[in-house]
Amino acid sequence: MLQNIRVVLVGPKGSGNIGSVARAMKNMGLRDLVLVGGGRTQSFWARAMAVHAAEMLKEVRRFATLREAVAECALVIGATCRGGLYRSHSRSPREVAPEILAAARTGKAALVFGPEDHGLSNRDLNHCHLLITIPAHPEYPSLNVAQAVMVCIYELFVAQLGQPPRSEIIRAPAERVERLFDRMRASLLKIGFLDSQNPDHILLALRRVLGRAGLEEKDVRILIGLFRQIEWYTEDGWRVVQEKEKKGLKVR
Amino acid sequence: MLQNIRVVLVGPKGSGNIGSVARAMKNMGLRDLVLVGGGRTQSFWARAMAVHAAEMLKEVRRFATLREAVAECALVIGATCRGGLYRSHSRSPREVAPEILAAARTGKAALVFGPEDHGLSNRDLNHCHLLITIPAHPEYPSLNVAQAVMVCIYELFVAQLGQPPRSEIIRAPAERVERLFDRMRASLLKIGFLDSQNPDHILLALRRVLGRAGLEEKDVRILIGLFRQIEWYTEDGWRVVQEKEKKGLKVR
Repeated sequence: MLQNIRVVLVGPKGSGNIGSVARAMKNMGLRDLVLVGGGRTQSFWARAMAVHAAEMLKEVRRFATLREAVAECALVIGATCRGGLYRSHSRSPREVAPEILAAARTGKAALVFGPEDHGLSNRDLNHCHLLITIPAHPEYPSLNVAQAVMVCIYELFVAQLGQPPRSEIIRAPAERVERLFDRMRASLLKIGFLDSQNPDHILLALRRVLGRAGLEEKDVRILIGLFRQIEWYTEDGWRVVQEKEKKGLKVR
Repeated sequence: MLQNIRVVLVGPKGSGNIGSVARAMKNMGLRDLVLVGGGRTQSFWARAMAVHAAEMLKEVRRFATLREAVAECALVIGATCRGGLYRSHSRSPREVAPEILAAARTGKAALVFGPEDHGLSNRDLNHCHLLITIPAHPEYPSLNVAQAVMVCIYELFVAQLGQPPRSEIIRAPAERVERLFDRMRASLLKIGFLDSQNPDHILLALRRVLGRAGLEEKDVRILIGLFRQIEWYTEDGWRVVQEKEKKGLKVR
């Protein structure tokens, strides 16, 4: 679907912005960049800002009018940060993303961005089926054009992933964690950290912290190792370590 | 809440990027921009890219180290696009946004971004409680730093428009947690649990677990007490404890 999404820049002035847009597009898996009117794609700044997307700049196509640039597109979306008579009904990129992706399944969809200084004109908006406005602070709602492109196509990228990706922690089985707490209790009693009258008060606080984190098997292994080492130290370890220190050897 | 969110740029190379970050921040209602190490804030490109956020560049603060830059922050989030041993458990900005906003209700939260070329180092990641990775195309997942800042703070801006998040835990300031890790390192070296050649490998795993949990002041106090007790044991404690045991007394 992302292959079917076109980014159209109308009259961009800074060639660095064109490069930044190319990079943003490659970051989000898009390739179809189109310019209406001016804009240098092979300048130093265009290439510098594109970094590893510089090769995309060679494929940029140019049209004289917006109408031509979106001629075969099934859905044309204009980005605007201004309000006004022709700009009510504007929605957020997140809200519109599913519609854009749906259109891009069967045809081309174009996201259209205006020049840096004034944005899309009312004439440009004539060619747009939908309008989007990026939520922003009212004091300064005008984003740099490449930033605006990034936010919009990021929303599309995330939407096509379906659920926002989450890295789940794979929690170790409860019994493993209980073993850890057995070790913890035994070793902390040995060094006199826990009150033998009421060891559970502090243990419960530690349980709470580790429960909040969620422990994976490797975390359990490290922590069991830690408390085992404390026990070892109280048994033979202190002698071993002190002898090593006396001889100026590394403890470990 | 957005007032309590700090953006930290570690060693930014392009001053234009600093300006772009300032603009993105003003777009999203943030003001607290901090640099670690280099970066020019008053160059032509910094001011040009900031446009109407140029006045913010005068307020940018500088610190020599990341630790100082985030000292009073309750939650420190590192942005990374690379995978790897120390970078698993990274989550998406959208997923983490509610947690960041919750922390920003009662304290400062810092979003940390690395230099343009290599991103945050493993050493920098030590200071981060959570990691975020912006979903991107695997062919070119590395966003321009100002673009990455924009996506992350846009997610925060959108999230705060929604429901006010519930804050469950009140995180202790980063510097308190660093103190804890200093203690942890010292004591675990003393009992030979950490490899003196490479103590950070295991420490990082422990940092990650506790970062995931989120430590309140009382948790920090208990854990500092625990590691202090280990140190005490290695110094005089072992003698005290053994004498008590010999006499059949309770250790504590």
